[in-house]
Amino acid sequence: MTNKGATAERKLVNLLTDEGFAVMRAPASGGATSRALPDVLAGDGTSLYAIEAKRFTTKQTYVTADEIAALRSFAGNMGALPLVGGRPNIAPGDAAYGDDSLSGWFFMHPDELRETDGGNRAVEKRTLQANGDTLNDLVAHSTL
Amino acid sequence: MTNKGATAERKLVNLLTDEGFAVMRAPASGGATSRALPDVLAGDGTSLYAIEAKRFTTKQTYVTADEIAALRSFAGNMGALPLVGGRPNIAPGDAAYGDDSLSGWFFMHPDELRETDGGNRAVEKRTLQANGDTLNDLVAHSTL
Repeated sequence: MTNKGATAERKLVNLLTDEGFAVMRAPASGGATSRALPDVLAGDGTSLYAIEAKRFTTKQTYVTADEIAALRSFAGNMGALPLVGGRPNIAPGDAAYGDDSLSGWFFMHPDELRETDGGNRAVEKRTLQANGDTLNDLVAHSTL
Repeated sequence: MTNKGATAERKLVNLLTDEGFAVMRAPASGGATSRALPDVLAGDGTSLYAIEAKRFTTKQTYVTADEIAALRSFAGNMGALPLVGGRPNIAPGDAAYGDDSLSGWFFMHPDELRETDGGNRAVEKRTLQANGDTLNDLVAHSTL
């Protein structure tokens, strides 16, 4: 049995590494740690990004209020910009379809994500593709 | 069979976490990664430290030239201060003996470590205890 989420996350690590970032990846979820860590920390000497990564196949997924709080706290301690990275399935008609340079990942600051009544944040495919930063934006340091 | 090096390193992670640091730990050595990472990255909103951790029971151990280069490169990309952390066995007569607050770890900048003819760096118990920074120094941001 393969873990597609972990595979996609590893691919993100490789993409960032290929772009010259130093990347540290948190231990797999469910590991023997009580410390709340985001999935990826990546720096290139100019910018430092703490990334909570979500791969999803439906129209949207959620980041819990606890995950957002942990991401903000961790990023604050590391001096990093907190980002939620979403990788929706790319289909014909999507902006990123067939454009490998976009990598399929989009990044948004937690503040930009719609907050639900329960305090969680929605990661929506449509919003990501319309307003999210691409991997190229991260490389070019043109994120928020 | 236990891995005493990994256990000591985990203890360092816990010590730093208890002091309010956000800590990320690299996957165990020998893992399926070709990326050279130091053992620990720790930040508290003021300082960010990249630490290559060495536990040893003899008078000295070594950090290879490759490990030092990887530590410097990684720290540069993360905007962190590169440190070699050494934890020698503490014996009666040592400054840290019986003083749990010192934690047994001492930290030095790679430049401070004696370079061998082969370009490696020596991590010496005597030098660490005489010139190294303690965990308390890291917490107080009084390192180099």
